[in-house]
Amino acid sequence: MSKYYLNDEAGLSKAGNKLYQLINDLYPICRSITGKGVRQTLDILSELIPLNKIEVPSGTKAFDWELPDEWNIRDAWIKNSKGEKILDFNVLNLHVLNYSTPVNETIQLEELKKHLFTLPEQPNLVPYRTSYHSRQWGFCMSHNQMMKLPEEEYSVYIDSTIKPGSLTYGEYFIEGELKDEVLITCHVCHPSLCNDNLSGNVIAAYLAQHLSGQQLKYSYRFLFIPGTIGSITWLSQNEDKLDKIKHGLVLNLLGDSSNFYYKRSRRENTEIDHIMEFILDQDKRENTILDYSPWGYDERQFCSPGINLPVGRLSRKPHSEFPEYHTSADNLDFVQPEYLAESIGLLQKAIFVIENNDIYINQNPKCEPQLGKRGLYKSVGGQRDQKDFQIAILWILNYSDGKYSLLDIAKKSGLNFQVIVTAADELLKAGLLKNKIAQDG
Amino acid sequence: MSKYYLNDEAGLSKAGNKLYQLINDLYPICRSITGKGVRQTLDILSELIPLNKIEVPSGTKAFDWELPDEWNIRDAWIKNSKGEKILDFNVLNLHVLNYSTPVNETIQLEELKKHLFTLPEQPNLVPYRTSYHSRQWGFCMSHNQMMKLPEEEYSVYIDSTIKPGSLTYGEYFIEGELKDEVLITCHVCHPSLCNDNLSGNVIAAYLAQHLSGQQLKYSYRFLFIPGTIGSITWLSQNEDKLDKIKHGLVLNLLGDSSNFYYKRSRRENTEIDHIMEFILDQDKRENTILDYSPWGYDERQFCSPGINLPVGRLSRKPHSEFPEYHTSADNLDFVQPEYLAESIGLLQKAIFVIENNDIYINQNPKCEPQLGKRGLYKSVGGQRDQKDFQIAILWILNYSDGKYSLLDIAKKSGLNFQVIVTAADELLKAGLLKNKIAQDG
Amino acid sequence: MSKYYLNDEAGLSKAGNKLYQLINDLYPICRSITGKGVRQTLDILSELIPLNKIEVPSGTKAFDWELPDEWNIRDAWIKNSKGEKILDFNVLNLHVLNYSTPVNETIQLEELKKHLFTLPEQPNLVPYRTSYHSRQWGFCMSHNQMMKLPEEEYSVYIDSTIKPGSLTYGEYFIEGELKDEVLITCHVCHPSLCNDNLSGNVIAAYLAQHLSGQQLKYSYRFLFIPGTIGSITWLSQNEDKLDKIKHGLVLNLLGDSSNFYYKRSRRENTEIDHIMEFILDQDKRENTILDYSPWGYDERQFCSPGINLPVGRLSRKPHSEFPEYHTSADNLDFVQPEYLAESIGLLQKAIFVIENNDIYINQNPKCEPQLGKRGLYKSVGGQRDQKDFQIAILWILNYSDGKYSLLDIAKKSGLNFQVIVTAADELLKAGLLKNKIAQDG
Repeated sequence: MSKYYLNDEAGLSKAGNKLYQLINDLYPICRSITGKGVRQTLDILSELIPLNKIEVPSGTKAFDWELPDEWNIRDAWIKNSKGEKILDFNVLNLHVLNYSTPVNETIQLEELKKHLFTLPEQPNLVPYRTSYHSRQWGFCMSHNQMMKLPEEEYSVYIDSTIKPGSLTYGEYFIEGELKDEVLITCHVCHPSLCNDNLSGNVIAAYLAQHLSGQQLKYSYRFLFIPGTIGSITWLSQNEDKLDKIKHGLVLNLLGDSSNFYYKRSRRENTEIDHIMEFILDQDKRENTILDYSPWGYDERQFCSPGINLPVGRLSRKPHSEFPEYHTSADNLDFVQPEYLAESIGLLQKAIFVIENNDIYINQNPKCEPQLGKRGLYKSVGGQRDQKDFQIAILWILNYSDGKYSLLDIAKKSGLNFQVIVTAADELLKAGLLKNKIAQDG
Repeated sequence: MSKYYLNDEAGLSKAGNKLYQLINDLYPICRSITGKGVRQTLDILSELIPLNKIEVPSGTKAFDWELPDEWNIRDAWIKNSKGEKILDFNVLNLHVLNYSTPVNETIQLEELKKHLFTLPEQPNLVPYRTSYHSRQWGFCMSHNQMMKLPEEEYSVYIDSTIKPGSLTYGEYFIEGELKDEVLITCHVCHPSLCNDNLSGNVIAAYLAQHLSGQQLKYSYRFLFIPGTIGSITWLSQNEDKLDKIKHGLVLNLLGDSSNFYYKRSRRENTEIDHIMEFILDQDKRENTILDYSPWGYDERQFCSPGINLPVGRLSRKPHSEFPEYHTSADNLDFVQPEYLAESIGLLQKAIFVIENNDIYINQNPKCEPQLGKRGLYKSVGGQRDQKDFQIAILWILNYSDGKYSLLDIAKKSGLNFQVIVTAADELLKAGLLKNKIAQDG
Repeated sequence: MSKYYLNDEAGLSKAGNKLYQLINDLYPICRSITGKGVRQTLDILSELIPLNKIEVPSGTKAFDWELPDEWNIRDAWIKNSKGEKILDFNVLNLHVLNYSTPVNETIQLEELKKHLFTLPEQPNLVPYRTSYHSRQWGFCMSHNQMMKLPEEEYSVYIDSTIKPGSLTYGEYFIEGELKDEVLITCHVCHPSLCNDNLSGNVIAAYLAQHLSGQQLKYSYRFLFIPGTIGSITWLSQNEDKLDKIKHGLVLNLLGDSSNFYYKRSRRENTEIDHIMEFILDQDKRENTILDYSPWGYDERQFCSPGINLPVGRLSRKPHSEFPEYHTSADNLDFVQPEYLAESIGLLQKAIFVIENNDIYINQNPKCEPQLGKRGLYKSVGGQRDQKDFQIAILWILNYSDGKYSLLDIAKKSGLNFQVIVTAADELLKAGLLKNKIAQDG
């Protein structure tokens, strides 16, 4: 059995606070799919784990794609005719169209408006907009601000560059007992958006730190990677590793107060799907299980038909269907330490199942064994619920015929997975069970 | 992709009116399982399509059956003691028991009553009754009329013949790109009943006309055939054709105002079942899906265990469970042009799916292809819903792995089948898809 | 077809009264997993059927177990300081801890209380307790009685012996046309408890008597056996017979007024499961179907993973979850003749399905056969519902393709199983069906 230990409530609470602080540090950075913002982000996350930073040159082929030139930005503003800054990149980096070309001009309001992006239906919010693949310059502002702009001349200034460089991502690998891997991935390409990328980033980094140094069955691979193009790049360069990936999770939108959403992998019937559904089913909060759909985050790539990995996604919000999505409202108020802590707690329970979901073979399959003579009618630990433990013993013995995993047995019995694992451990010690892999040799 | 085009609303409305007129012409004819009535009916339907009329001699063996002698009737009446006609075949041919032997006698009321059929629970209606397999003479009248008949002598006259001849049916074949066939069949053996046979007859003939001259993937075979014995005859003489029949529909009861009923084929999980369920599911009207049962219309024969074709039935009424069933109330008021038009519209949508439900293979299955560089982020037509089109592109790419047909993808995505077909067409043109059959060679 | 006949209502009522009388005779006997109580019980049941009584010596190995020494008890009481019996084994044998060691002492109340078992939450009832595997002496009394015991000296006396002897069980075998067996089993090891063991015992014996002398397809094996250790013993000594057991039922808790519970076999999809679910589904009373769980009665052993027989359990109460369970309230008032009769009636219907659930092959599978010429449109018996019979004919012909049994057809059609069997019999006589086994040779 894996010795994987989980944080207790106090540990989770402490982790939540620490990660919220980390989000504070990461929030001001202007990230994109390439450029210095990603590098700075990986540096900060390296406070938790020694991330391996990989640079892939612009122009590199990645399946059907080619890596774009690198974008960097130093400053940007709009000034009115009096020379007053009415919009400033340094105040909020969402104000600049991500991947904007440079500009330095004085123009009329009518011309300016062609380069402004607003949200008429959410007039107080600044939208997040990108233009990776068609070259243009632009600014994002609140609709209310735009409506109030007087007819006058404006100076527009964007000090950016788009030129050959590289795409950057972070990778972290923990070697377990098996070569089989669990893949945990999150995107790091969104600028000042807290729930939509930073919550996933800090939680993935924390899980990596927490798993490091534990005695693990699986190997774990963490990716901190630009969305779409980053994942496509990684997949195209690591095809030889894919058959080792037995379970995977895309993490994002994990810092807000809403209930959990789990989106199944494309294969829809994989072990990670069963595990997440079980964990959510036993969770006291309501939750939603979604079938796979070909949009959302990087599950799109991991679950494309020629890749088709057992990768699901855990979030607390459905992708794109919440008012703060891709706006300035996805800020430091939108995420909170307690929700980050809850998300970590849930993920640790899932990892506990991943680590311990073995199949055992009852060594005394003809009728029940005499448990009394082996001391298996007595409690073997103080805090455990004794009645559940006794029932767990019977369920495990009855269904350990090589077809049912401990998770299957937990589902059938309705018992808590921890009780099942404890009971299986006692039966192993008593020689009444063998691990199927050990028995099959 | 098939180029099959559907009628628009105006076209459907026009068709409904035309078919209602045709029902008016067909209504007075006295049809039976043999005889001149069927021949006259096929002549009238030939206004729409050049039907092939087949004559099968009386006495021919058809599996467990033998074709009966041909029945023809010229006149029939009952006169009271004053010589007044109190019942006249020429007013309503339901008045004569179908397949009645001839008679010319004067008898007392008591004796007459032994030969009368009425509906005590629907006392104003005249029933439709047949006696194909035991020879007798008889009349059908309203229960109210019978109850008022005075005790006196009556003259009964039926000028009919039952003698060797043939069973007649109509067949129409449209050759498509494939030898694989769609079978559409309806019975033509009921006398003056509008919904129960004429609605199916005119709609089948109209579909045949509408399909003729179109560029079709499938071949289409239409049968206008006497119920039970006609279908048994056709099946016994065409066993070599059965393995070409990939989909089939029995059409009947399609002219009244009620919601649609679809009865699954015996195999219950065939493509035609999935198609009809999908079409009805997307239809705004309520509907009922019935599992197969071994009674009803000619699906009984097409789905007998040794034939077992993928043939379902579309109706707007369940078989036999409506008050007008097999009575004089199934008349020209019971069916209406608008309902005929609705039925045609629904069937054309089903044919559109039949024609286009192909399986494609994504040619760029590893991660998403870059759609932008292929212009697939832009609308490719004015009236189409652009957002649905973009989502359809992703669904098709993700699930075109050789296992999912376009119908499967439409179901998974909840999108309209037309949008799916349009998007697949664009992907084909962009070289991102290949038809599975083409790819498998 | 099997000629198995069922009791009519009068016969069931008579049987219920007779079995209730038998329970009266069996109630006072002090049964345990070994000893004279079981022998006396088998002697009384032998009034119905000539039971084969088997003795297995103490110390015999049975899989993981070893048969215990035999326990017998002659007398037991507690006297107060005045020499008055305040508890008497002869009044209610539950008063003695089952398998209690002998004792003959005078002790203080404080010491006595260490050997008393009560039910604080049901203070008027005497519990049933056992201590098969750890040697101790003890008494059971109502909690109210214990609370009122004055501080004084008590004489405690148990005249019991635990020494080498044997374990006893009863077996009864009825040979049918096939070697394939139906196993019906019940435990006989509980002392004065009516519903929990005696109801199962008398009903099993009655079914055995009722089946004897009938013309049966299956062979039937009845076991009257001590719980757990008895079944383990039988299984360990009869492994060569197990592959003949095609269906099995554990019977218990069948004499009270509640609705039926059926607990599925571990395999959950066996014919006996389908049969019992069908019978209960057609029953007018509400009922509960439970998935298999590894506790309860001897289904635990018959469904252990290395045995895994198609054995379910029929009860009118869920195991252990009713207030009278294992208390003095499970007495002669708790069971009643009418409920015993209902249980027999239900079991006989199940046996009727077991006996007749064959698969037939339609000999005229291409289209419907002409039923009229074979007289199959006429009623073939007075009391039968004619319309259901006609419909049954069509269902059987349509689905008798070698895949569907008569039970499958009854479920699909919603028709009564008796009507299906009658119709199949007529089709067999008409040569339109053959039994699949006969046809396959």
